[in-house]
Amino acid sequence: MEHFADRLCAAVRSKGNPLCVGLDPRWESLPEPIRQRHGLESLDAVAAAYEEFCSRVLEIVAPLVAVVKPQSAFFEACGPEGMAVLQRLLRRARELGLLTILDAKRNDIASTGQAYADAAFGGTRIATKTFPVWQADALTINPYLGADAIEPFVQSARRSGGGVFVLLKTSNPGGADFQDLTLAPEAGERAPHKLYHRVGETIRSWALQNLGLCDLGDVGAVVGATYPEEMVWLRQQLPEVVFLVPGFGAQGGSAADAAAAFRPDGLGAIVNSSRGILFPYPPSETDWEAKVANATRQAAAALTSALATR
Amino acid sequence: MEHFADRLCAAVRSKGNPLCVGLDPRWESLPEPIRQRHGLESLDAVAAAYEEFCSRVLEIVAPLVAVVKPQSAFFEACGPEGMAVLQRLLRRARELGLLTILDAKRNDIASTGQAYADAAFGGTRIATKTFPVWQADALTINPYLGADAIEPFVQSARRSGGGVFVLLKTSNPGGADFQDLTLAPEAGERAPHKLYHRVGETIRSWALQNLGLCDLGDVGAVVGATYPEEMVWLRQQLPEVVFLVPGFGAQGGSAADAAAAFRPDGLGAIVNSSRGILFPYPPSETDWEAKVANATRQAAAALTSALATR
Repeated sequence: MEHFADRLCAAVRSKGNPLCVGLDPRWESLPEPIRQRHGLESLDAVAAAYEEFCSRVLEIVAPLVAVVKPQSAFFEACGPEGMAVLQRLLRRARELGLLTILDAKRNDIASTGQAYADAAFGGTRIATKTFPVWQADALTINPYLGADAIEPFVQSARRSGGGVFVLLKTSNPGGADFQDLTLAPEAGERAPHKLYHRVGETIRSWALQNLGLCDLGDVGAVVGATYPEEMVWLRQQLPEVVFLVPGFGAQGGSAADAAAAFRPDGLGAIVNSSRGILFPYPPSETDWEAKVANATRQAAAALTSALATR
Repeated sequence: MEHFADRLCAAVRSKGNPLCVGLDPRWESLPEPIRQRHGLESLDAVAAAYEEFCSRVLEIVAPLVAVVKPQSAFFEACGPEGMAVLQRLLRRARELGLLTILDAKRNDIASTGQAYADAAFGGTRIATKTFPVWQADALTINPYLGADAIEPFVQSARRSGGGVFVLLKTSNPGGADFQDLTLAPEAGERAPHKLYHRVGETIRSWALQNLGLCDLGDVGAVVGATYPEEMVWLRQQLPEVVFLVPGFGAQGGSAADAAAAFRPDGLGAIVNSSRGILFPYPPSETDWEAKVANATRQAAAALTSALATR
C-alpha cells in the first residue's frame, strides 16, 4: 500500500500545483438555475441542490487539481440525506482520481474515536466484516483530547494508506485564544513555548513514525495562511509534517503567505480555497462553470508562481 | 423561553437524580435476539438494530432519569442511515419527555461552526426558512479553536433555550497531554495556571452572560470523573458552570468521585453512564430489559446516596 504522503506528492506533481478545492456548498451562493431546479421545500431538496452543484464542480476541477476537501458541516446541516450526498460526492471524487480530505474535525476518546476513525477510512468493523462508510483519503481531527485520542485515527489511517491532519494553528482570529498561550518553560528549554508549538512537536513525533519516500509523514497539521510569521516558524520546526493550509483567498491569506508553508524542495503543503473557487460570481451568473474553472486555474497559477519566486 | 439550566434542574428534580444515560450502541454487546432479527448484511441492518435497542432503552429509562446523551460516533459509523436513526431517536427521547445532549464534540470556524450549531439546535436556516435537523437540548463542543469558534454555538443554543458543554478536562488518560500543560504566569497571577484552568475561566465567563434562576449558566463543561482532585478544584472555581461528567462506572470513576462535581446545594452537574447501563449483561441474556432498568436504578441510587453523605 502506497504511503499517504507519497500519493499526495505524486498527485500534486501530476497536476502541477498544490491547490485543494474545498467543497463548502452554501444555498445563498448557489447558481440560480440550480436553486430553482430543486427549490427550498425541504432539506432533502437542499441536499439535492448541493449534490448537483458539487458534482459539477468535481468534474470541472478534476483535471486541474489533485485534492478536494468536502466540509462535513454543510452536509450534516441537511440531515441524513445530506450525509448520503456527502458519501456519494466522496465516491465521485475518487472515481475522478481526486484525493479526498474529509474536513470534519472529529475526535473522541477510546472506542468512540475508533468508530469515527474507521468510518472515515477503511470502514466500520463489526464482527468479521468491514463496511465502507466515507472512505476518505484523509480526515481533519482536533488535538484537545490528547495523544491517546489521536492514536486510533492514526492507526485507522495507516491501515488504509490514508492520513490525518491535526488542527494546529487555525486560521480564525480566535485561534490564538488557547493555541497561542505561553507555556511555563520546562527544565533545559531555552525559549518559551506556546501551546501550538507543543502540539506541533507531538504531531511531528507521529509523522516521524511513518515517513514516505518523499520524507513526509502521514500525520499532518492544519496551519492557517492568516498567520504568516507562525507559518515560517512551524515550517522550519516540522520539516516532515504535511501542512493543510486554509485561509488562502477569501479569508485573507495571500499566495505568498501560503508559499511559506512549503519546504525548500517545494513539497510539504496543500493549500485550500473554498469560496474563492466555488463562488467567484453572483448567483445570477449563467456561465458559472467557466468562472469556477478560471478561478481554479488562477489560484493554482498564483500558488505555483509564489512558490517559484520566493 | 425557559433557560436551559432551569429546565435541566427541574428535570433532575422531578426524577430525583442527576443521572444521564449515554446511548452508545455497540453491535458486539447487543442482546442476541436483536442481532439475529436484523442480521449483519449491511450498515442499514446494523443501524436498524441500534434503533430497536436504543428505542427500547429510551422507554425503559424515561421514567427513571432526566437526560440521555446519544453518542454521534456510533450512528455516523453506520453512514447516512445511522444518522436517520439518530434523528429518530432524538425525536423519540423528546416525546418521552427526556432532555437530550448530542455528544458530537463538534467545532469549526465562522459560518462552518454556525452550520453545525444551527443543525444541533433550532434548525438549519436557509433564506427565510428554518429546517429542524437534530433538535437537541444540548451539544458537546471542543474549545481548541478559540472563543470566536465557540460563540456561534452559544448563540444558537440560546435562541432555542439549549445549552453547550465545552470539553474541559476529559476522562481519558491522555486528556492530561495538553489540557494539563502549565502556562507561564501572567502579571499579577499568584499561582501557575494550567491550560484547562484557562479554558475553564473562559467557559465561566460565557456562563455568567446568561444565568438561569438556579444561578447556573447555559454554557457548561465536560469534566471527567476520573480526575477527582481536579474536579474538586474546578467545582470551587466555576460555581455557575454545569458539569457534564463522563467516566462514572465503566471508566473507573466512583459515585463519590462524581459527587464532587456538584455544588453544595446539590445542583450543577449531571453524571453520565453508558456501558454500565446499556450492557450490564452478556449478549445471551434474555431478560436484558430488566437488567437495564436495574442498572439505571442502582446508578441513580448510588449518585443520590453519594450526594447525601458527602
